[in-house]
Amino acid sequence: MIEPKYAKRMYNSQSSVIREMLKLSQDSSYISFAGADSDPKHFPFDELEKEKSKLAESGKEFRHGISEGSDYLREALADYLRSIDLHPEIDEIQITTGSQQALDLTGKLFIDEGDAIIVERPTYMGAINAFKLYYPRILEVEMDEDGMRMDSLEHLLKTEERVKFIYTIPDFQNPTGRCMSSERRQRIVELAKEYNVMILEDSPYYSLRFDGERIPPIMHYDEDGSVIYLGSASKIISPSLRVGWLYSYSHIIKEYLVIKQSSDLHTNEDMQNTIADILRSRTFKHHISDITGAYKEKRDLMIEMLEEHMGPDIYHTTPNGGLYLWLVLPDNWIAEDILELCLEEKLIVVPGSNFYYSEKQHNTLRLSYANMKDEDIINGIKKLSDVFGRYRLTL
Amino acid sequence: MIEPKYAKRMYNSQSSVIREMLKLSQDSSYISFAGADSDPKHFPFDELEKEKSKLAESGKEFRHGISEGSDYLREALADYLRSIDLHPEIDEIQITTGSQQALDLTGKLFIDEGDAIIVERPTYMGAINAFKLYYPRILEVEMDEDGMRMDSLEHLLKTEERVKFIYTIPDFQNPTGRCMSSERRQRIVELAKEYNVMILEDSPYYSLRFDGERIPPIMHYDEDGSVIYLGSASKIISPSLRVGWLYSYSHIIKEYLVIKQSSDLHTNEDMQNTIADILRSRTFKHHISDITGAYKEKRDLMIEMLEEHMGPDIYHTTPNGGLYLWLVLPDNWIAEDILELCLEEKLIVVPGSNFYYSEKQHNTLRLSYANMKDEDIINGIKKLSDVFGRYRLTL
Repeated sequence: MIEPKYAKRMYNSQSSVIREMLKLSQDSSYISFAGADSDPKHFPFDELEKEKSKLAESGKEFRHGISEGSDYLREALADYLRSIDLHPEIDEIQITTGSQQALDLTGKLFIDEGDAIIVERPTYMGAINAFKLYYPRILEVEMDEDGMRMDSLEHLLKTEERVKFIYTIPDFQNPTGRCMSSERRQRIVELAKEYNVMILEDSPYYSLRFDGERIPPIMHYDEDGSVIYLGSASKIISPSLRVGWLYSYSHIIKEYLVIKQSSDLHTNEDMQNTIADILRSRTFKHHISDITGAYKEKRDLMIEMLEEHMGPDIYHTTPNGGLYLWLVLPDNWIAEDILELCLEEKLIVVPGSNFYYSEKQHNTLRLSYANMKDEDIINGIKKLSDVFGRYRLTL
Repeated sequence: MIEPKYAKRMYNSQSSVIREMLKLSQDSSYISFAGADSDPKHFPFDELEKEKSKLAESGKEFRHGISEGSDYLREALADYLRSIDLHPEIDEIQITTGSQQALDLTGKLFIDEGDAIIVERPTYMGAINAFKLYYPRILEVEMDEDGMRMDSLEHLLKTEERVKFIYTIPDFQNPTGRCMSSERRQRIVELAKEYNVMILEDSPYYSLRFDGERIPPIMHYDEDGSVIYLGSASKIISPSLRVGWLYSYSHIIKEYLVIKQSSDLHTNEDMQNTIADILRSRTFKHHISDITGAYKEKRDLMIEMLEEHMGPDIYHTTPNGGLYLWLVLPDNWIAEDILELCLEEKLIVVPGSNFYYSEKQHNTLRLSYANMKDEDIINGIKKLSDVFGRYRLTL
């Protein structure tokens, strides 16, 4: 047999642990805190259905689409983005095959071997996995309750050469559920200007706020062409449709177009138009308040259970939106060992080490609440507390 | 304003001329020979419609899918591929977001800077555009009526180091419409084994044969794990759905999975299931014979018109299937200049230089017949003949 000679980037790559756990989650005898989905109960099925039925009125939708994405969707998105303090023109929007593709395209567009990129610590590992195929040096900046620390960021920018962009998830961050404060949003834009680097603002959860005051996107504060804003239908409509969007300045979007063409020509037009119809529908706002209302109840229940069943040495974040919260366990605990005990109890959690690039912090866990039945939250947290009790005895 | 610092791969990239021309083709006052689509009249609308209406029976289809692609589609594809002399197992198939993504994933998986890849001359420029982002040396092998020349290929393999794969479109090649003979298919597999290189068999047109005897895919002859086979729904069902597939040995498919995850997580599940239902339907075979029957008529008409209106110094291929044919004009003719004259006549043709990587051959044109009205073929070829007449006078 021939021995395939893969590119050296493959020695450094592996299948996503979380996506592997998603497969396990399909076994309904497990309680899973690993979900990356929204609750399908809240997907706008009726709208999707109605829009589907408009299909095939003409042959057009079945032909090749344009690589930029359909005007119909981009117009709807421009309206949607205007509702969150942004001001795009149609030619400042590029449609992508889910937000994951936007991350890959960004890696392609910006990263030469040896360039530096800066990410939050911890962060979404799917972004790291996309970027690292282009051989960057990946530098992590610690977070606190207000998001990425600007003093640490500035220190890095001062000392590092060849920083191409700062990657941040400012709203209800995956995995911590934290938000970047508005002061820091203004500051990160100043720093980007001062050090001439781009900001990649990954914002799939923005509209899923259920508590606290809305903070405008980082891009709202930008006057120097430094921000590339990523959005997605995955968390607000449905992840299976694979429709995301990039919004930036037209001279940058023009470059994205070139690599979009060579990556998959264009995104499914039918799905683009479905998303557009949902965004344009009068019920879309109600849909968003329905899901955020539902997620708030789930979060409240999970927090209540955590506070009732966990000891004072178990820290948790209290997100004002989004799908996840974050546990920090005592320093010497190892979440991978805890996962093993959990699996014996048919309970799935995600060890936080999966969200660190360099030195892993092993005493952390991500819990998703959004797509869970109340009884699973109640029984799951009880089980997790029991596992913690058993784990304590092994130390 | 911040000056974005793009990766150096971008200095070498440009938007596809052909995709730009497709935009022009949307103006119905033009007669366009530039189409890359099949004829939408022949897309299986009723089937698509029926399958759509099954949507949303459960929420499952709206959740994240698995990165490999749905089992339902992969099973249907395994059956389909068995009907063309291949023998896949489910875990030897990876679903991609159109075949274009399979090309990008292959570049990522195999190409380190400075590696060599071998392509046909001329070839599909979308493949070159995908590969070149990974900095290969691209080596071209001349073709004749039986496809890629094996003597030239062997010469290259003997002299070149670090060849990662040979890229070929063996059936009704884009742009020439030519097929690789079965003798050469056996020979290329022998050469791949001897020189320990992979073969990337890009086969979107395979089922669109309307004349001559069917030739098994190259992969049919492979016993040494050297072939990666790419297929697509774009030319046999509809291009807008963005569903393609990779079939190779499971140890190779496992590597593709890793980069598929970081590229776009997974392909739209709804579209996957729609394609699966169409492949499984009893009418699928009729659909294929309908479209090939229709394309044969278009080709016959175009050849008839060419033979009636073109001089003996205009050579054309006579494809036994697929969507395109290829004109070779007198040596000193420049197709770009001819295109300018054509556009004045509201006629769109694709200069063949777009299909060469290194030294462009400027006296060539690609004409697509599949998605054209009879009257457009008739009037279009007449106009083209007139343009040729005017062009002769300028030389």
